[in-house]
Amino acid sequence: MKGEVKLGILGGGQLGRMLMQAGLDFNIYTLVLDPDENAPCKDICNEFFVGSFRDFDTVYEFGKQCDILTIEIEHVNADALEKLEQEGVKVYPDAKTVRTIQDKGLQKEFFRKHNIPTSDFIILADKTELEQNTAFLPAFQKLRREGYDGRGVTRLTNEADFVKAFEEPSVLEKLVDFEKEISVIVARNANGEVTAFPVVELSFHPEHNLVDSLFAPANVAYKLQRYAIEIATRVIEAFDMVGILAVEMFLTKDGLILVNEVAPRPHNSGHHTIKANYTSQYEQHLRAILNLPLGSTEIQSAAVMLNLLGEPGFDGEAKYEGLQEALAVPGVYIHLYGKKYTRPARKMGHITVLGQTIEEAQQRAEQIKNVIKVKA
Amino acid sequence: MKGEVKLGILGGGQLGRMLMQAGLDFNIYTLVLDPDENAPCKDICNEFFVGSFRDFDTVYEFGKQCDILTIEIEHVNADALEKLEQEGVKVYPDAKTVRTIQDKGLQKEFFRKHNIPTSDFIILADKTELEQNTAFLPAFQKLRREGYDGRGVTRLTNEADFVKAFEEPSVLEKLVDFEKEISVIVARNANGEVTAFPVVELSFHPEHNLVDSLFAPANVAYKLQRYAIEIATRVIEAFDMVGILAVEMFLTKDGLILVNEVAPRPHNSGHHTIKANYTSQYEQHLRAILNLPLGSTEIQSAAVMLNLLGEPGFDGEAKYEGLQEALAVPGVYIHLYGKKYTRPARKMGHITVLGQTIEEAQQRAEQIKNVIKVKA
Repeated sequence: MKGEVKLGILGGGQLGRMLMQAGLDFNIYTLVLDPDENAPCKDICNEFFVGSFRDFDTVYEFGKQCDILTIEIEHVNADALEKLEQEGVKVYPDAKTVRTIQDKGLQKEFFRKHNIPTSDFIILADKTELEQNTAFLPAFQKLRREGYDGRGVTRLTNEADFVKAFEEPSVLEKLVDFEKEISVIVARNANGEVTAFPVVELSFHPEHNLVDSLFAPANVAYKLQRYAIEIATRVIEAFDMVGILAVEMFLTKDGLILVNEVAPRPHNSGHHTIKANYTSQYEQHLRAILNLPLGSTEIQSAAVMLNLLGEPGFDGEAKYEGLQEALAVPGVYIHLYGKKYTRPARKMGHITVLGQTIEEAQQRAEQIKNVIKVKA
Repeated sequence: MKGEVKLGILGGGQLGRMLMQAGLDFNIYTLVLDPDENAPCKDICNEFFVGSFRDFDTVYEFGKQCDILTIEIEHVNADALEKLEQEGVKVYPDAKTVRTIQDKGLQKEFFRKHNIPTSDFIILADKTELEQNTAFLPAFQKLRREGYDGRGVTRLTNEADFVKAFEEPSVLEKLVDFEKEISVIVARNANGEVTAFPVVELSFHPEHNLVDSLFAPANVAYKLQRYAIEIATRVIEAFDMVGILAVEMFLTKDGLILVNEVAPRPHNSGHHTIKANYTSQYEQHLRAILNLPLGSTEIQSAAVMLNLLGEPGFDGEAKYEGLQEALAVPGVYIHLYGKKYTRPARKMGHITVLGQTIEEAQQRAEQIKNVIKVKA
């Protein structure tokens, strides 16, 4: 924490951008690697490198320049992370955690091995194996690798859906009849200190399978909130990892909590913490990887977070409509990600709506929900 | 607000840095002019220019590239601002406001002309005129121009103090027997909408004459708070300016409020709003100059703000001590300004301490007050 700490970030998207925005307060020197020369991090990091975070040599050469290496996307070259660890770079999250989480098959097996409650599943090598498991339907088929923001996931209700099934190695996850989807973001520093943000409730976009809106705090019984936090804490401790971990969970109609999937980095389900909590998820990640005491996760205001997605039918240089009208509503805050180009359903920004109560935040969110549009 | 708005900032210090940190959420393209090639803004703006913001040609050439031009220090070339205004650049605050405020003599005359309550004063051309006004003591003598962060101010109790009096044009301000020093930050957009942040209480460093710590909300009777906000609103409307204006006031032992001085830019007395209020002073300034609806100034948490000054006796590359210990106290947040070199009493950062009540924030602030040290 001397100003001379060199922090490398694999990935230069909005999560990296908001991480650096928080990092300004800690005098961190930042290096970013991303294949897109127009990545949102480009203009605000100290050094920007265009290259693939999936390539061994590129990640290794990049990482060698850093004191601490972290990620804002998990699809990075884990072998390079491992070599960097061996050579003394502090890699948070570590190579073994990243390797487990970037493969949804290994991730599910990890949950099973560590008695983390999760839905039943079958690992499939190919489509032939899928056809041998029709009795397991209805289920979600998820690609083991490279799924992101709703891509690589398909719902299979019966054999008729097999036309849209994946050929590649995948996980078949038993459909969960859930009441709600919730998320808990936990953090752990190298001293082993662990904190959890309060439970949030997620609402997914019916079509794009990505977070549409979020409510914090969640309207969930206190006992279940305690239990969700306990599970999330067990997961981060099982990984023995440093940094933050978003734990997405199903709250079933039977009152069970099942872990859906986890992400070892800042997460869409923590964006609201910038405005609504004592410590943001971004600052918490920095405190964790710098091995500083973790911050209080206390709520300052209730919040609704709305993702701002590119409008269907528009592809090109982004233009924003409705900002005047939306910002006139008290408690409405916009966060644009600095992406030059929009395309349908691309994450272009988010809006946080604050209120003294979640009801007040929800009423305000209703007023502005369809007001801001990202067009081209 | 299309991402292509080019915002120029005269001055590249911490106020500009925090302004750009907030500006990331609005996709603003930023240009900064500062004489120091290591200015805190250097690495995070889109374009950085080394040059004097006091020089007509430099400011004019810089400003011609901008859609909107703002300041983070008032000692800039006002003639260049005026010419840029005439040529269609949106200059906020405008040239006439800057010209009035950067001269403490004109500022005091402005208050008098607009019936803004302020302490009695005499404009002095030189030291000879001071000697003709000994009956006016005790008073503060302030240089008309270039005073900043406690420089250019001296207290004259009696004739014996004349040895430390200034020769240059100055203002002699009657000493006010005040109970408290308070501040109200007001904002106004081009539509004429005005908002005020809640009153804060300032405690000044006895030696350096700059803000030592701040308490928000102020422990001041509600009626006086309303009155302070009313005065601050009258001041910004009298200037007919766009942007934010910090109005520092004395609360006298007789229950009067007198305006001390004003600053037409983000101000030390608004740093806590980043963590403690719905809208920060930085976002409010951006909303004002972009002519967006102003944000709610509602308090989310009580706060104490402590300036982090360079320790006496240290000059050189900054090192920070005590961060581990301080950040272990709940509610403690550090903001370092990215200054490479420290010197005695240089503003190197600030600390915001949050609490559910001002008493809680004060107790926490007491615990960490002398823990963080900036040395070399």
